[in-house]
Amino acid sequence: MSLVIVGTMAFDAIETPFGKTDKIIGGSGVYAAYTAAHHTMDIQQVSIVGYDFPKEEMEQLSSRGVNVDGVEIVADKKSFFWSGKYHMDMNTRDTLVTDLNVLADFNPVLPETYRNAEFVMLGNLAPKTQQSVIEQMHERPRLIIMDTMNFWMNTAMNDLKVVLGMVDALLINDSEARELSGEFSIVKAAKKIMTMGPKYVIIKKGEHGALLFHDDGVFYAPALPLEDVFDPTGAGDTFAGGFIGHIARTKDVSFENMKTAIIVGSAMASFCVEKFGPQRLKEITRDDISKRIAEFVDLVSFDIALV
Amino acid sequence: MSLVIVGTMAFDAIETPFGKTDKIIGGSGVYAAYTAAHHTMDIQQVSIVGYDFPKEEMEQLSSRGVNVDGVEIVADKKSFFWSGKYHMDMNTRDTLVTDLNVLADFNPVLPETYRNAEFVMLGNLAPKTQQSVIEQMHERPRLIIMDTMNFWMNTAMNDLKVVLGMVDALLINDSEARELSGEFSIVKAAKKIMTMGPKYVIIKKGEHGALLFHDDGVFYAPALPLEDVFDPTGAGDTFAGGFIGHIARTKDVSFENMKTAIIVGSAMASFCVEKFGPQRLKEITRDDISKRIAEFVDLVSFDIALV
Repeated sequence: MSLVIVGTMAFDAIETPFGKTDKIIGGSGVYAAYTAAHHTMDIQQVSIVGYDFPKEEMEQLSSRGVNVDGVEIVADKKSFFWSGKYHMDMNTRDTLVTDLNVLADFNPVLPETYRNAEFVMLGNLAPKTQQSVIEQMHERPRLIIMDTMNFWMNTAMNDLKVVLGMVDALLINDSEARELSGEFSIVKAAKKIMTMGPKYVIIKKGEHGALLFHDDGVFYAPALPLEDVFDPTGAGDTFAGGFIGHIARTKDVSFENMKTAIIVGSAMASFCVEKFGPQRLKEITRDDISKRIAEFVDLVSFDIALV
Repeated sequence: MSLVIVGTMAFDAIETPFGKTDKIIGGSGVYAAYTAAHHTMDIQQVSIVGYDFPKEEMEQLSSRGVNVDGVEIVADKKSFFWSGKYHMDMNTRDTLVTDLNVLADFNPVLPETYRNAEFVMLGNLAPKTQQSVIEQMHERPRLIIMDTMNFWMNTAMNDLKVVLGMVDALLINDSEARELSGEFSIVKAAKKIMTMGPKYVIIKKGEHGALLFHDDGVFYAPALPLEDVFDPTGAGDTFAGGFIGHIARTKDVSFENMKTAIIVGSAMASFCVEKFGPQRLKEITRDDISKRIAEFVDLVSFDIALV
């Protein structure tokens, strides 16, 4: 009765208008796991790393309740490395380096104990890899959510369509939703994507928040207006980790609870961008999270009696 | 005890990816008045038109409770004319023609009966014109709200700063807020603008909604996700008309009520974009408006008990 998270564990080198890092810990699986671990126990991590990935990072994850038996360690290769540079608006970035390294051979084999998980979060990976994880499950999980990106639409659209037919929810950003659907209107895009498989479509709009679509229903979660966005790397994976972490904790996959999960994800993402890398996700407490969620409640509350 | 609306009454010719109009009725004052008239009585319109502005339009406004004694009719000149073309994203447009015509000489003289108004909405006009209206009031209105645009920042910044010091609330879009403040972060931009005079800053983000800032408080109103935006012309003025119309109806200038006013403005704007020109604002009923506002409530509601 657990949550399987599949994603990269990697190194990033990041440049923003506010600063620059050397190689620091990153990867979708890292962000999602640190985040989900604030909300639920019994997280089962699926990833691949090289000989250079720090043992201390694995230990930190373990100490937070993240099982890392599903993380393959390749003795003679380096971990995945990404380097990018953000522009002033923090919504656009240039990729400077992508060294796949171990990721080129990622062919996850789930430990037997993982194969009854109730909830599965598939980070942005090759659709074939995502499919393979789903096929290793003994029973259909209660909720499978996946992320993807335009790269797979351009190089593996048929594979992507197969996985879309196997999941419950798709997490995607607005420009990718447009590309996947061929529709400019976000509403039309979401409706078209729902015909491709996912019953729930979550469209991330960065500083403009996120939209959740299901049938004819729609929910709009704002992003918290921040004075400074220090580093947006991992914000989408943190959002995903908060979303699925909340779902796994409450074990409630209703549309109503997904709305709350989106607020939790948004709150977690608002921490992520405050420092480089996953640092803030390691520092924050339950109290910090509660306060931040209360800010979201304030942000959107108005008195309907006055209308 | 009334609402003074100052704005253009004009002709527009509009091209969007979905269609094209000949000259149709437009202008910030027209959109704002039709909108506010759904919410409050006793609207006092200040504008200028040429010999070509249709009498039937004036009569329609009058029949909705809009006093047009403050609309100057110039017998030997044409009305203001604007023509523009929208791009696919509907957030950017090219101005094709701007014929100021009567607007070049706009020097409003408020009828005596207007000069005790409680509420004043200053549409986007030369700052000197906006200032002159404020100075004609016998007593300080309870709420003065103004719109502006980047054109005035580039050509009359000093005048603009003077008016900013005289109003309670500024309505501005995100790129203009950045330009006015010199701050990229919207939060920092709003804070800086509050030091220039307005205690309330409303930043419009088009399809991404609107933010209301006051002291350290912030409120985020989403825009309703629409399948089609047919014509965004006048949406900002409609938003303003809904905002000030709600304030004038409730006579409550608290921050809490302004949040509700922003939702009302957003709801009205969501009608505006459904057809070319102010057509939808003439068609909709009180019932349509109530239903639309209920959609906004649904759009942002989530169960905090689940967090």
